[in-house]
Amino acid sequence: MSAPATSSTTSPHPQPDGAYAPALPGTGERVGAAVDARLIQVLQDYRRRWRGLVPASDELLDAAAQLLSGGKRTRALLSALGATLLLDGDQRELTLASPVVARTGAALELYQASALVHDDIIDSAHTRRGMPAAHRRLEVLHRDSGWLGDSETFGRHGALLLGDVLLSLAAEEMSGLAADRLVGPGPDAARRALARSAFDSMTAEVAVGQYLDIRSEVTALSAPGDDPLACAQDMHEHALAVVRHKSARYSVMHPLLIGALLGGVEPGTALYKALAVFGEEVGTAFQLRDDDLGVFGDPRVTGKPAGDDLREGKRTVLLSLAWRLTDDDGRHALRAVLAQPGATEADLASAARVIEDCGAREAHEAEVEAHLTAGLAALHGLEAGTMPEVSSRTLEEAAHALTRRRA
Amino acid sequence: MSAPATSSTTSPHPQPDGAYAPALPGTGERVGAAVDARLIQVLQDYRRRWRGLVPASDELLDAAAQLLSGGKRTRALLSALGATLLLDGDQRELTLASPVVARTGAALELYQASALVHDDIIDSAHTRRGMPAAHRRLEVLHRDSGWLGDSETFGRHGALLLGDVLLSLAAEEMSGLAADRLVGPGPDAARRALARSAFDSMTAEVAVGQYLDIRSEVTALSAPGDDPLACAQDMHEHALAVVRHKSARYSVMHPLLIGALLGGVEPGTALYKALAVFGEEVGTAFQLRDDDLGVFGDPRVTGKPAGDDLREGKRTVLLSLAWRLTDDDGRHALRAVLAQPGATEADLASAARVIEDCGAREAHEAEVEAHLTAGLAALHGLEAGTMPEVSSRTLEEAAHALTRRRA
Repeated sequence: MSAPATSSTTSPHPQPDGAYAPALPGTGERVGAAVDARLIQVLQDYRRRWRGLVPASDELLDAAAQLLSGGKRTRALLSALGATLLLDGDQRELTLASPVVARTGAALELYQASALVHDDIIDSAHTRRGMPAAHRRLEVLHRDSGWLGDSETFGRHGALLLGDVLLSLAAEEMSGLAADRLVGPGPDAARRALARSAFDSMTAEVAVGQYLDIRSEVTALSAPGDDPLACAQDMHEHALAVVRHKSARYSVMHPLLIGALLGGVEPGTALYKALAVFGEEVGTAFQLRDDDLGVFGDPRVTGKPAGDDLREGKRTVLLSLAWRLTDDDGRHALRAVLAQPGATEADLASAARVIEDCGAREAHEAEVEAHLTAGLAALHGLEAGTMPEVSSRTLEEAAHALTRRRA
Repeated sequence: MSAPATSSTTSPHPQPDGAYAPALPGTGERVGAAVDARLIQVLQDYRRRWRGLVPASDELLDAAAQLLSGGKRTRALLSALGATLLLDGDQRELTLASPVVARTGAALELYQASALVHDDIIDSAHTRRGMPAAHRRLEVLHRDSGWLGDSETFGRHGALLLGDVLLSLAAEEMSGLAADRLVGPGPDAARRALARSAFDSMTAEVAVGQYLDIRSEVTALSAPGDDPLACAQDMHEHALAVVRHKSARYSVMHPLLIGALLGGVEPGTALYKALAVFGEEVGTAFQLRDDDLGVFGDPRVTGKPAGDDLREGKRTVLLSLAWRLTDDDGRHALRAVLAQPGATEADLASAARVIEDCGAREAHEAEVEAHLTAGLAALHGLEAGTMPEVSSRTLEEAAHALTRRRA
């Protein structure tokens, strides 16, 4: 699990700190703390509700608690920014500290945990957020308990159900919103209904995006004789579709819009449309940054082994650029690691060097910048006064923090 | 996959037809048709929304369509009965034909499909509703497409995501309820919020119940030397907990209560409490009937291979009774099939004979009757006039149909 040849200190975006919060002084910490407190409450409530099912219920809830204790609360913060977008001064401060913000953030974090658990099953991941992945944890429980049958199978099935539990908990947390008073324009019930719909269509989209992803991983890379340029172009398009549906919209656009709908931003308005474009573009840049970190990131900072994306055969935009820009020798070196669980650290380091040396990493950085710029342009295109100045400034800061991170 | 030794013609409850609808003349067919139409609409809407992701989106939606074309729409009908519980005459008829009934029913069917897909992965089931299980279908797609990697793994992962998609589609369909006008007492928004919460806590409960189930399957049966009576008692308690949380409340109580909340029945009232008891007890009887069919049912009628429950090692109430009532030889015959994928038809037939001959099947029938009676008693305890006579009569008919079915 050592870092690949290219250390993250050569990153084109040196940052004093990989964390997201510092770009938004105070707000990130406060929202994060409120969401943390709410998540603890949620888990306590379920422990109470399911106390007749101990120890089975505790096995699931402990695994959930472990997962939920990690994470950067990025989506929670984005929904908080959305919910306060039309507010200023005291109203903004009060709303940031309100139950609706904590609860929406908790729902997004619960859903994120659900998606991670299922994703880790699919990727056969060993660790998540520096701890054993949920299916590994349940596998160990099975083995340590001396239960019948295959421990790995039990771990996988248990984690499948844990993911289902977490998705349902997220949904219940969104249902709980009905108890909270909203601040901002428009009738409460209508805004809640819109936000709820947006939440549900987000989770549907992510699952379809994940399917696109596993599907793209099993389709063949170009055969010898195929035109590598046509293949690279095709890979680029597919990779962008996966990025958009599995990640970009989910990581940035949907949380922001769910918050904005609760905060009274109306669908169809110029502001709503600009937020959607901003969210999709910044979200795309965010995921492309992630893909760069997946090859070149420092595992001590990212918390995930470098090169795993290559070993899994993940068809990223970065890979499609390398496929186009390198030569047959380079493609040979890439093939040696793609979807090759047995690829060595040396193989991975060579592959990373190919991606860097052929100029793909640089071209990828330009794509990150282009998406970030397109996102910011959507904000800049809004008429002055559409939202308080503090909101546009905060969105802009968030965009930079999300795309220039190191972890 | 032939029937076990005891043919279903010896069933203590001979029925002219395994279907559920005939006990409720007209209503079942009409609700079923409205839900079918709504499901077709839902899938069409997603095809449109995800048309940019063809063919991947079609692969998922075709699998969903196949699953949704089957099923008895039992839960949809129960929620329709709930929604019309306080209504009579024209209002009842109009509500039965309303979008809110069709949509709630569609949401329940979508969720049922989701739970089945995940359940079939866990059980490594080959078929569902007489067709290949979703993970098998996607496995075949992988193989026929000549994709990379292991077809079985792809099938399993694809189905995991299909289940997630279906759960999200169910949630979106519940969100869509906000567009429908409700009939009955109380403010619309409050009733919708209550129903929505009930839906979300139902899905959470089922996933926990499924975990209880897989967990009970891997715990050891009594070791030689253990007291079989204590073991049987323990098994009985665990089996009932699984029945309650995975199935009984989900199959009957929750759909009925979700409908009732939409129809204006208030939580905490005598009627609400009676419906909860009725639903849980009838639901328990319903699942116990299912467990009987899992051993003694006719595969041509049930659509699932007989004996699979034994082969999987499912710890049912029926099995716990047999464990108590049979002798060491009988327990030996049962051990020969429990969680033994290689058990032969002859082994399964012997095991079924043990269960019948020791009196466990008869004792099990008595438990079915006891739960049914307890459910009906909850209704009979209500003050006259709490609901229109047509409603109590229909609930009673439903209880009988659900527990005396053959499929």
